[in-house]
Amino acid sequence: MIIDKLIDAIKQKQNPTVVGLDPRINFVPSFITEKYYEKYGYTPKAVAKSFYKFNKYIIDEIYDIVPAVKPQIAMYERYGTEGLKAYEKTCIYAKEKGLIVIGDIKRSDITSTAEAYSDGHIGKVTIGENEYSGFEQDFITLNPYLGSDSVTPYLEDCKKYEKGLFILAKTSNPNSGEIQDLKVGDKHIYEIVGEYIEKWGSELVGKYGYSSVGAVVGATHPEQATALRKLMPHTFFLVPGYGAQGGKAEDLAVCFKDGIGAIVNSSRGIIGAHLKDEYKDCFNDEKDFARAARQAAVNMKTNLKRCIEI
Amino acid sequence: MIIDKLIDAIKQKQNPTVVGLDPRINFVPSFITEKYYEKYGYTPKAVAKSFYKFNKYIIDEIYDIVPAVKPQIAMYERYGTEGLKAYEKTCIYAKEKGLIVIGDIKRSDITSTAEAYSDGHIGKVTIGENEYSGFEQDFITLNPYLGSDSVTPYLEDCKKYEKGLFILAKTSNPNSGEIQDLKVGDKHIYEIVGEYIEKWGSELVGKYGYSSVGAVVGATHPEQATALRKLMPHTFFLVPGYGAQGGKAEDLAVCFKDGIGAIVNSSRGIIGAHLKDEYKDCFNDEKDFARAARQAAVNMKTNLKRCIEI
Repeated sequence: MIIDKLIDAIKQKQNPTVVGLDPRINFVPSFITEKYYEKYGYTPKAVAKSFYKFNKYIIDEIYDIVPAVKPQIAMYERYGTEGLKAYEKTCIYAKEKGLIVIGDIKRSDITSTAEAYSDGHIGKVTIGENEYSGFEQDFITLNPYLGSDSVTPYLEDCKKYEKGLFILAKTSNPNSGEIQDLKVGDKHIYEIVGEYIEKWGSELVGKYGYSSVGAVVGATHPEQATALRKLMPHTFFLVPGYGAQGGKAEDLAVCFKDGIGAIVNSSRGIIGAHLKDEYKDCFNDEKDFARAARQAAVNMKTNLKRCIEI
Repeated sequence: MIIDKLIDAIKQKQNPTVVGLDPRINFVPSFITEKYYEKYGYTPKAVAKSFYKFNKYIIDEIYDIVPAVKPQIAMYERYGTEGLKAYEKTCIYAKEKGLIVIGDIKRSDITSTAEAYSDGHIGKVTIGENEYSGFEQDFITLNPYLGSDSVTPYLEDCKKYEKGLFILAKTSNPNSGEIQDLKVGDKHIYEIVGEYIEKWGSELVGKYGYSSVGAVVGATHPEQATALRKLMPHTFFLVPGYGAQGGKAEDLAVCFKDGIGAIVNSSRGIIGAHLKDEYKDCFNDEKDFARAARQAAVNMKTNLKRCIEI
């Protein structure tokens, strides 16, 4: 069960952190980009090659201290098919280094279309007698707005290929409440969605009592997270919004239960650390950018562990 | 304004149909696949090349009678980056033939991530002094679960690059009601979302009184469609669910107002027509598969025009 592997890795590394691999061109040091601009011109291909190289440096510096990475596919899709090749290769490289890969894709569609996404992201396609994976991910994120039959195809692939999901319940953005906080009778939409997620995951519960079908619960909404933690005893939380978006370690401690139950994401705070005043002085050669990311990941772990005993 | 171009094309071709370019490998005749299997083996590349060739045949047969196509990106993403190249090329070819391209991508994410999706799908990226489009689409579909700040970046690109959106209000699948039909006070979620869509589109209303920010409203739910048509006077509807999913022309007439106001999608019913008994006899050589698609598109137009006067 993939959720057990994730929890084992969190326990072993004593770190409930996932590093968001969401590259932007201004994060990538010029010693990387210049080489590719020279070779491929100012093209999406050069940017994609730069992203992959950037990610490799980061992964090499953090794979021994964090259990998982979460590449955000949009950052690669921005550069079309060339960008997506960098996404594909990043997932493969992270897995090679023993990291669990959470593909942040937030897809949503009707059953027949969900089957296609599921094949491409967590399942396989058969061509002649050959089997292929489109992208190599352990977990993917999904949007629940279309209801149960938009999730079913993924559940089947989770069982068959030992994969997992994180489905949006309460997102970290400022306007998330417009729909998610609406009240139906005495329940909020995020709670109703939470109950569905708990049900969808009921056949995928592992040895720690958590399901491979998890939920996305933003660190920026501690009140809602507290309600969801009670309502979803078997659901593991992926918690975005820490750091750059304003979520604090104290606030997100409510997502945990006996030291497990959640993994906290930081993207810009880690992979963009070398651009922050806080790290600039210690890592003043741009070639040290990934060491700044490592330091930021260590600091995040220390900060989380003040509030959460794993 | 892209919505005006879409309505002009519907009027000119007297046809409110969009053809869903959602290829599956079993739809593609063997005279296409065999050539690519021979050249590239049983690989995603061979499937992707087959999809693009298949789509080209279909587009060549229908571009003069339908105003738009709607490729479903999942069908391509299923085959990883190779598949997505076929998506990219399909969009470009359809535009070359004068068709309006609705990219069915149903993306959803927080502002900073939505900016990346928007850049890649309807905006541009700047690299050095060069500008690039990731994918060439006129409209894209979006999921509203994250709220206004997840939509804002796209609205800016719609204005800047003359593009449009179709945002999910009430989807065509059987379980769509689980969240979308919930009642908050006296309003359903799909109505609340409908009101947001009407608001999001308010600065993009064109000469026919419709906005370039449209809504997805399933043909399988005539009651909800009737309510939404009243609630959203400036919102153009993209109507999935006709044919294979059970939606009938009589039912979806409520999406129209004075002969305009909606475009109806059919995917399998058109691009898979050659596999249906109804068309098999007339188009018995597999090389005629695209002519079967044309005939199905003509029949759909005739069927819709029985109920809708454009």
